[in-house]
Amino acid sequence: MNEIRRVLITRQGRKFYAKDLNQDLHTQYGYIKKEDLKKAKDGDLLKSNTSKEFFIFSPSFIDLYKKIKRDAQIIPLKDIGVIIAETGINKESKVLDAGSGSGALACFLAAIAKEVVTYEIREDFIEIVKANIEFLGLKNVKVKHKDIYTEIDDKNIDVVILDLPEPWLALDNCAKALKPSGFLVSYSPSVPQVADFVNAVRKNGRFVYLKSVEITEREWEVEERRVRPKSKGLGHSGFLSFARKVT
Amino acid sequence: MNEIRRVLITRQGRKFYAKDLNQDLHTQYGYIKKEDLKKAKDGDLLKSNTSKEFFIFSPSFIDLYKKIKRDAQIIPLKDIGVIIAETGINKESKVLDAGSGSGALACFLAAIAKEVVTYEIREDFIEIVKANIEFLGLKNVKVKHKDIYTEIDDKNIDVVILDLPEPWLALDNCAKALKPSGFLVSYSPSVPQVADFVNAVRKNGRFVYLKSVEITEREWEVEERRVRPKSKGLGHSGFLSFARKVT
Amino acid sequence: MNEIRRVLITRQGRKFYAKDLNQDLHTQYGYIKKEDLKKAKDGDLLKSNTSKEFFIFSPSFIDLYKKIKRDAQIIPLKDIGVIIAETGINKESKVLDAGSGSGALACFLAAIAKEVVTYEIREDFIEIVKANIEFLGLKNVKVKHKDIYTEIDDKNIDVVILDLPEPWLALDNCAKALKPSGFLVSYSPSVPQVADFVNAVRKNGRFVYLKSVEITEREWEVEERRVRPKSKGLGHSGFLSFARKVT
Amino acid sequence: MNEIRRVLITRQGRKFYAKDLNQDLHTQYGYIKKEDLKKAKDGDLLKSNTSKEFFIFSPSFIDLYKKIKRDAQIIPLKDIGVIIAETGINKESKVLDAGSGSGALACFLAAIAKEVVTYEIREDFIEIVKANIEFLGLKNVKVKHKDIYTEIDDKNIDVVILDLPEPWLALDNCAKALKPSGFLVSYSPSVPQVADFVNAVRKNGRFVYLKSVEITEREWEVEERRVRPKSKGLGHSGFLSFARKVT
Repeated sequence: MNEIRRVLITRQGRKFYAKDLNQDLHTQYGYIKKEDLKKAKDGDLLKSNTSKEFFIFSPSFIDLYKKIKRDAQIIPLKDIGVIIAETGINKESKVLDAGSGSGALACFLAAIAKEVVTYEIREDFIEIVKANIEFLGLKNVKVKHKDIYTEIDDKNIDVVILDLPEPWLALDNCAKALKPSGFLVSYSPSVPQVADFVNAVRKNGRFVYLKSVEITEREWEVEERRVRPKSKGLGHSGFLSFARKVT
Repeated sequence: MNEIRRVLITRQGRKFYAKDLNQDLHTQYGYIKKEDLKKAKDGDLLKSNTSKEFFIFSPSFIDLYKKIKRDAQIIPLKDIGVIIAETGINKESKVLDAGSGSGALACFLAAIAKEVVTYEIREDFIEIVKANIEFLGLKNVKVKHKDIYTEIDDKNIDVVILDLPEPWLALDNCAKALKPSGFLVSYSPSVPQVADFVNAVRKNGRFVYLKSVEITEREWEVEERRVRPKSKGLGHSGFLSFARKVT
Repeated sequence: MNEIRRVLITRQGRKFYAKDLNQDLHTQYGYIKKEDLKKAKDGDLLKSNTSKEFFIFSPSFIDLYKKIKRDAQIIPLKDIGVIIAETGINKESKVLDAGSGSGALACFLAAIAKEVVTYEIREDFIEIVKANIEFLGLKNVKVKHKDIYTEIDDKNIDVVILDLPEPWLALDNCAKALKPSGFLVSYSPSVPQVADFVNAVRKNGRFVYLKSVEITEREWEVEERRVRPKSKGLGHSGFLSFARKVT
Repeated sequence: MNEIRRVLITRQGRKFYAKDLNQDLHTQYGYIKKEDLKKAKDGDLLKSNTSKEFFIFSPSFIDLYKKIKRDAQIIPLKDIGVIIAETGINKESKVLDAGSGSGALACFLAAIAKEVVTYEIREDFIEIVKANIEFLGLKNVKVKHKDIYTEIDDKNIDVVILDLPEPWLALDNCAKALKPSGFLVSYSPSVPQVADFVNAVRKNGRFVYLKSVEITEREWEVEERRVRPKSKGLGHSGFLSFARKVT
């Protein structure tokens, strides 16, 4: 993956990404000359050959994050946000997630946490995760080609996040990996998975079950007096279940 | 505020906080002897004089956060999470918020960001914010007793978050404080505030408006075959509007 | 149950019911004299001895419906409404429901449909249903003290509505009772019930499955510029599953 | 509009409509012979020339309703249902609505109520309404080519429903048309309309304001263990505000 050097955004919020400043940047609104791209400072206003206006700036973490490769279905930002908020992941945290998928969650958390370990069994996904880590310039993510149902060789973890078809099979391994009071979070799209996971957590004995929630993000239109929810909802992504390892 | 030394949690998820290990800890389920509190290691199982079981551990950031003083109405975790996720606040970020209220948002973000500045005009709130910062042991929060409608003397901020009755009055000051591509987030409980803010952002010229959303958290009951949304919803907290300073 | 003769409503929407016009009506806002009650015409404004204002009118169907006895948990109006709307219940319809519970659904539908039959196995509920039918003055409801899992002796029904713990056990009987193209509706609070019902409907062969939905009613506050969802949501009542008997 | 004589439905719930039994019915799954259509009884299973199975039956009211002409945006069934349920519209009710649009609401209610009057100012819509009334065979709908902001010449109405851009302009006329205790319902897509309507109702003096709600219908997928909300939500239609004429 090529590095993204500059981001351009229209007044309507549409974004374009310049990877090579020695080439003109072509958009559906005309092209921007390489000379303009090269000399522009953050916050400058550029115009395409068709006079369309673009603001230019250097990419921030979230700009890059939105451009990572995503071959697996990735967890939406709203759910990532609530995982962080409910568990208090912070600069001192050691976090573990499985399976990595495209590594989106691991990468997002690595920008916040001290250290992230991510487990994945599929080699094709491992390659994507590594490419994404490099693309984002992250130094604190360890990728493990391992089956979390079989073994976790990490210890003293603050938060474990599972995005697995049968998360209940990983309970004992998670209990060993987590520090006392560490959080176990499971993300599942379907209700029977949630039910089986929660019932297994309650039976396991080493966890205190906290809650299961669904987070919904509803976007609103705001245009003068047209102020209303958008006609199409975001719909469903998954349920989040939270537990705490206690002993 | 006294330091919290140890957290105790029942199997049902009820938490108790021990501030003084030289005193017995009294709960509605009987008391735990100070000798037990003192010698307990993280993850130990203690029993009260009535044989109620408690797991014990050292408080993590989120345990302490939930015990801060909160004289003003504080923004719920779901909304804090989505602010972090949408703006990509991370270890390198400089964040500014106004008004502080109890300082909950500033404190939460300080555990993640490099630096947080928080503006508040009410002196009584300033005292609470300072007490909460000390209670959480945070070193990277600056509290400013200033009116953000009048002036912001910080520069190059990555994310500004407004929790104000008339956020549109702070637009020009926010534009000066934010770096190009920096995020402006406004949190408002009522729709007319959202509409006035968004319409003002669009007119201002220095921002690109992104979106306004409402985040809903719905809790589910999971008890064997009783698997259903809880009867009472969390209800409404506020709307989040996102914009980006571009020039 | 005594007949309700008159309804009184305050400007704030609080309702009071006068059953005996030969007695003063006592409210938390003072009492209204029987002389005033007796001579009042619909739409008159009465005052209590404390000068509180009440508008008076004769009860309409919905006023009476809200005062029926309700010993069982009754299905909320939003769900009744959607059953009517999705199945097109109208003046020509023959409707059957089981179990009756307090008879709320049967009574509501009887005000619309040609004929309603309601099945219930508990005798104590049967008594309540009959009292409610009489209270509402309905002439077109038949109450059957029968187990719908065992037998339905009605034929050519347009819509069958099940509010039962194990609705899938009634499928064959419902297929016999419904006319071709008749609707089968099941109302269940929990997801595993919905799943078991839908999977059984699909396997049964005599039905075409249409859809399962959850209806949410969210109330808004509107007070000048305070325009926002109410803090407390209505929460969850149940899921509605719709199928059509085809052969 | 041609009469619909028969409805055919596949096991997957896809519907086809036969208007002329002297012609083969062509579908994307092959065609059904006119001989089969003609001799089929309700509930029979027919096969197309490609052996696709179809169940056949006579249309019920809801089948026809879903085929009316709809040149204006029509109110969804969930909202119609809640209007009926909240106001208790029944066989004895006199209902008035404005503006008619395609007449969907008026037609639906006419199948339930005693009498429906519908006001519309646009002649092109009036034509559609009349065609829909005829198509559904309704005898109790009066269509008036009149501006409800200017005059209502009906009296003693049980329920008035407004689907208008500025419903507050019709308040005085509605007060005159409604019987004491009659319901006024307004359906609006945007929040500022809701706010202006509710604030005007409160000021008017002849109404008691009841509530404003948004009704959401969320569909669920149920396929063995895949039990979850559908990815796409129904989104937003409009808000319903309810008041009662009291004097």
